[in-house]
Amino acid sequence: MLGLKDRSSTASQAELGSLMRLVDGDLARVNALILERMHSPVALIPQLAGHIIAAGGKRLRPMLTLAAAKLCGYQGERHLTLAAAVEFIHTATLLHDDVVDASDLRRGLATANAVWGNKPSVLVGDFLFSRAFQLMVADGSLEVLAILSQASAVIAEGEVMQLITANDIETTEEAYLDVIGAKTAALFAAASRIGAVVADRPTAEAVALENYGRNLGMAFQLIDDMLDYSAHQAELGKSVGDDFRDGKMTLPIVLAIRRSTEDERQFWRRTMEEQIQEEDDLATAIALLRKHGTLAMTMERARLYGNTAIAALEPFTDSEARQALIDVVDFCLQRGY
Amino acid sequence: MLGLKDRSSTASQAELGSLMRLVDGDLARVNALILERMHSPVALIPQLAGHIIAAGGKRLRPMLTLAAAKLCGYQGERHLTLAAAVEFIHTATLLHDDVVDASDLRRGLATANAVWGNKPSVLVGDFLFSRAFQLMVADGSLEVLAILSQASAVIAEGEVMQLITANDIETTEEAYLDVIGAKTAALFAAASRIGAVVADRPTAEAVALENYGRNLGMAFQLIDDMLDYSAHQAELGKSVGDDFRDGKMTLPIVLAIRRSTEDERQFWRRTMEEQIQEEDDLATAIALLRKHGTLAMTMERARLYGNTAIAALEPFTDSEARQALIDVVDFCLQRGY
Repeated sequence: MLGLKDRSSTASQAELGSLMRLVDGDLARVNALILERMHSPVALIPQLAGHIIAAGGKRLRPMLTLAAAKLCGYQGERHLTLAAAVEFIHTATLLHDDVVDASDLRRGLATANAVWGNKPSVLVGDFLFSRAFQLMVADGSLEVLAILSQASAVIAEGEVMQLITANDIETTEEAYLDVIGAKTAALFAAASRIGAVVADRPTAEAVALENYGRNLGMAFQLIDDMLDYSAHQAELGKSVGDDFRDGKMTLPIVLAIRRSTEDERQFWRRTMEEQIQEEDDLATAIALLRKHGTLAMTMERARLYGNTAIAALEPFTDSEARQALIDVVDFCLQRGY
Repeated sequence: MLGLKDRSSTASQAELGSLMRLVDGDLARVNALILERMHSPVALIPQLAGHIIAAGGKRLRPMLTLAAAKLCGYQGERHLTLAAAVEFIHTATLLHDDVVDASDLRRGLATANAVWGNKPSVLVGDFLFSRAFQLMVADGSLEVLAILSQASAVIAEGEVMQLITANDIETTEEAYLDVIGAKTAALFAAASRIGAVVADRPTAEAVALENYGRNLGMAFQLIDDMLDYSAHQAELGKSVGDDFRDGKMTLPIVLAIRRSTEDERQFWRRTMEEQIQEEDDLATAIALLRKHGTLAMTMERARLYGNTAIAALEPFTDSEARQALIDVVDFCLQRGY
């Protein structure tokens, strides 16, 4: 991991590139399957679903399923169906997230709720969620169904936890890690594990891939939460400072509050707890995060999770797939530099 | 069905009574299972879920699964798990419905969204939906998973269709029937069919029970939509006139618009399409429905679906279970008198 800081953004592109090259043909088929299976005679459903699905998401989670299957030497086609199911679950949670957060912007485009309102976003989310299960039923593995229905329940728990910790300046680092472990890392873990399950590999390999995915997901969300205070809006594709405006207790804030002076604590209480925010408050918040170095600390924790993800791949012999999965970790971390 | 109109409301109680007596012991175990499986370390989840689940719903859908299993001579315990799954799916859709409709009152109590806000209602709905699938996975039948994941997708389609037809005074009776077939009858059909599936009965019996459930669901929703204009608020347990205020194109309205004079059409256009409503408009709307007899017509259609539901039970020999299922139809229709 040394020298990461010196890599250019071109290197960052290249690193997701190795994953994309690995799963290229498969991903095209997954995208075709997604388009086919989001169809409904009710035209608004594919319209709205297409808006968010076609909006240029990275397809990171389904690519993990595809790459993990390749890593396990899988030769069949089941991973395509299941990767599509993973993306449907992810998209359903995004639609509901944007309603819950009242977000206007995602991936550089207006959110579905901003275009069509909250109502169809809730219902199309439900539709995609059901479709995900129909895809899994078509695949026919109860083990996969167990993994993804469990992950879905955990995601919902994480989202509710996030709602509860919002505006609570007493939120601990542990509570924050519980939230992102549930709302983000659980699906990364499930998506990765499924690759071993379809390939019928021993449990040890399934667990290794699950650990890889979980730690990658933690790193990914930590960086995401850091970027909400440090990215340029155009690069982020969503509104900078959204988390601040929502009073979301992400790690940069949690760590800064723990280190705050009495005056600073009053600032956090007013802006995060009482949600009384003025025009310069986001700038002040960012200055406080920089003063206490909590963006760098968040980055450092992401790096540790990233290293753990890479270490989880040790049982596997070196291969193009293994290298691509390692590169994904670097890609996630690179976003933070 | 002759003489239905003469039955007292005591008779109406008695009629759901035969179903309740039939499944009494089973339903208590289903309720225990529901309480156990809605648990989560995130306390708000069982709080919110408990609010709606304990709010005195009739448990009609899970009772259909229990009664259908009895009708099919089923001796095991799988129907208990699956009845709980059916109720979880139903509860999830109720939570999302109330968010979409911005309802304040359900079953005579404040809705979850009115108490806790929309955000946790969306997320706890997602949680219960995931739990439903976990229960089905624990049961282990891919056939049941296929039936209920399909039903869930269709329900979401129906809800979106309802959203699209709202405020559209050109909505046809056919479009209305499509909406309620999807949003309501699909789950009644699935819940009933599952009874034959767990009992491993021939497809003909599964289809018969599915037809019973679908037609019962149609009758149930028709009566529900009629009651929104004719019930006393205390009896209904929800706000009378909600559908009118939301601009929902239910059958009494659809039929009245088709028969309207030019003046009346202007009234419907203003109140339903432009959503400009004044204090006396609900009373005027009800007077127009009575003038054109469309509440009675809606009741009559419900009666036809009810008869079809009863006819679907013909392949089964007479039994306590068969009689209870017939009585359910009468119960649903009685609500309308």
